[in-house]
Amino acid sequence: MSTIKNQERLEMNEPIIRELEEDDLTKGFLNTLDSLRKTSNLSNGKAIEIYKKIRTNPEHHIIVAEIEGMIVGTTTLLIEPKFIHDGGLVGHIEDVAVDKKFQGQKIGEKVIKYSLEFAKNQGCYKTILDCTDNVKKFYEKIGFKNMGNELRFDHN
Amino acid sequence: MSTIKNQERLEMNEPIIRELEEDDLTKGFLNTLDSLRKTSNLSNGKAIEIYKKIRTNPEHHIIVAEIEGMIVGTTTLLIEPKFIHDGGLVGHIEDVAVDKKFQGQKIGEKVIKYSLEFAKNQGCYKTILDCTDNVKKFYEKIGFKNMGNELRFDHN
Repeated sequence: MSTIKNQERLEMNEPIIRELEEDDLTKGFLNTLDSLRKTSNLSNGKAIEIYKKIRTNPEHHIIVAEIEGMIVGTTTLLIEPKFIHDGGLVGHIEDVAVDKKFQGQKIGEKVIKYSLEFAKNQGCYKTILDCTDNVKKFYEKIGFKNMGNELRFDHN
Repeated sequence: MSTIKNQERLEMNEPIIRELEEDDLTKGFLNTLDSLRKTSNLSNGKAIEIYKKIRTNPEHHIIVAEIEGMIVGTTTLLIEPKFIHDGGLVGHIEDVAVDKKFQGQKIGEKVIKYSLEFAKNQGCYKTILDCTDNVKKFYEKIGFKNMGNELRFDHN
């Protein structure tokens, strides 16, 4: 009996994975990003401005996980056309975030796997991301391999 | 006398650093990329197609170094608008390449420094890149700091 209940709960909480729409800005998307860095204090006007700027690049995709009408997970996939690799495409994954109340439900894994499938369908030969040591194993389980170092230059 | 000659040579070889133009595709740009991976075998038609695709993203900048009418160095700067960091911009540096005949003349350093200045002027709060251990010191001298790992997923 308890097994069935768990199964029902899992089915109810199975997220819809899709691209970000403007309406999502007021449906938990910014709060989800709070788990990376406080973002929900952005005004709605500013959030719409950023959304529109992102939309000017046809290769900038923001993926979201929706449960019961609310955004609870997200990641970004930038697709970069290159001259090398015969004009090959490379996917860049950025800003993987899951709302704190929904962590531990494989939502991060689901948005990553969706992004990888999306990148593959667009013709990417590889997808890369940067991460700290503490989450490396999570990505290695999905199939990522450690290739090098992430270096950062601060402008200030 | 020999010192003056060296100085003259250095002045003559001082590259012009600027953004890629379509004409550069047949002026050494693809050969410069050969130092990363064979690229000069791309047909001119295919190269123009890639150039036009890249141009559809206003935040995708290809920087080149020109000496005496020929491209001898390049890098790519992708500028990514984010929701986090109050809609902050992040620069991504990719594909740093210098024509083999011109290596050892600080051309790589010049295209990187130009890209960092460009990113700063666009309002980026940081610029990141991925590199292998053997070139890490080169970037650290410019001011980059090691922040994490580059992970790669191959689609095939």
